[in-house]
Amino acid sequence: MTYLNFDGKELEVGKIVCLLRSYAAHAEEMGSEVLDEPDFFLKPPTTIIRDGQDIIIPKESNIVHHEVELAVVIGKTGRFIEKENAMKHVLGYSILIDVTARDIQAQAKKLGRPWTIAKGYDTFAPMSGIVPKADIDDPHDLDIWLKVNGEIRQKSNTSLLLFKISEIIASISRVMTLEPGDIIATGTPEGVSQIVAGDKIEAGIDGLGTLNVGVR
Amino acid sequence: MTYLNFDGKELEVGKIVCLLRSYAAHAEEMGSEVLDEPDFFLKPPTTIIRDGQDIIIPKESNIVHHEVELAVVIGKTGRFIEKENAMKHVLGYSILIDVTARDIQAQAKKLGRPWTIAKGYDTFAPMSGIVPKADIDDPHDLDIWLKVNGEIRQKSNTSLLLFKISEIIASISRVMTLEPGDIIATGTPEGVSQIVAGDKIEAGIDGLGTLNVGVR
Repeated sequence: MTYLNFDGKELEVGKIVCLLRSYAAHAEEMGSEVLDEPDFFLKPPTTIIRDGQDIIIPKESNIVHHEVELAVVIGKTGRFIEKENAMKHVLGYSILIDVTARDIQAQAKKLGRPWTIAKGYDTFAPMSGIVPKADIDDPHDLDIWLKVNGEIRQKSNTSLLLFKISEIIASISRVMTLEPGDIIATGTPEGVSQIVAGDKIEAGIDGLGTLNVGVR
Repeated sequence: MTYLNFDGKELEVGKIVCLLRSYAAHAEEMGSEVLDEPDFFLKPPTTIIRDGQDIIIPKESNIVHHEVELAVVIGKTGRFIEKENAMKHVLGYSILIDVTARDIQAQAKKLGRPWTIAKGYDTFAPMSGIVPKADIDDPHDLDIWLKVNGEIRQKSNTSLLLFKISEIIASISRVMTLEPGDIIATGTPEGVSQIVAGDKIEAGIDGLGTLNVGVR
């Protein structure tokens, strides 16, 4: 089981639900259409690493990409959550890098197969500490960025998210019960690029500090 | 969090890793090619229901299918598990019905999108109790069947699995650490068909008893 620290206590991670194509400029760079409503996939909790740890490039992949995302940590159980009540289910926020084996994902997309392997390798979800909801004034107006070896690669603002967090929670909970310790990665802005062994990655979101990981 | 009973104790469910196209006759009925090596997707633990409960047809889907599968329950942590040692990681076996919103899955396949929604609705993984590994002589020689309203729909034998359980464990663990409480659904034989509200489903595997669920 995988645990995160929140408010001095251990929080067990449940599901990691990740949105796709939730920023128009990223959908465009991937050659994909924007979605009318949220679509998502799962990463296993075994993907999580913490600040200071290393992403490990699997030998089966030649192209591994970073995707920096605002993560929403769920604090209260719910199914069929109404948009109007959705923010009551949020415990806090975190920075999450949705690491992706892009070559494996491209093959899966082409063949109509699941994305699980491409997204699911151990170390493929570096996460920062969780900041309580009350400490963030407006989660839809936060600068979000990622640097590789000091060079900026992704730089955007969560105002460009195509879906509000409340809509995302409502949408996921129409499919599955959300529980405390579940994590929603809200999708990545444009600028995704390859990372290789030896790279140093630094990601940041306003109010959430920074997240530093290596690559090997 | 979701728990199963094993040997009088509560076992917390971790990942549910499900194989696709692992019986040739099912790949054929789906118009899909057989795979050279295991491929898989995740169902969230919130999909699990137990004997006597009901599968709930989501209003977003018009075609929901049953897929009866032999499930392997993991009892010991491992990554890069060698085929030769893989069976030491098995705690026991169970019957699992991988319920699938086939229309949503078909659309996802066509668009190269993830399978998560099609496979991830609450109640989409009925499971029987766990039988200890030692009680099953040969997991690769078990009759497996499923009836809808008393009529046989799926009938096969686990000898027709294209991959041995040891290979499946080795393959998944090259991607992600397997942990106690993780469940591997080994894929379904042919005969998948639609279920509708009011149906009574009975599934069985030699040595594992039967699993009865309703549909609403």
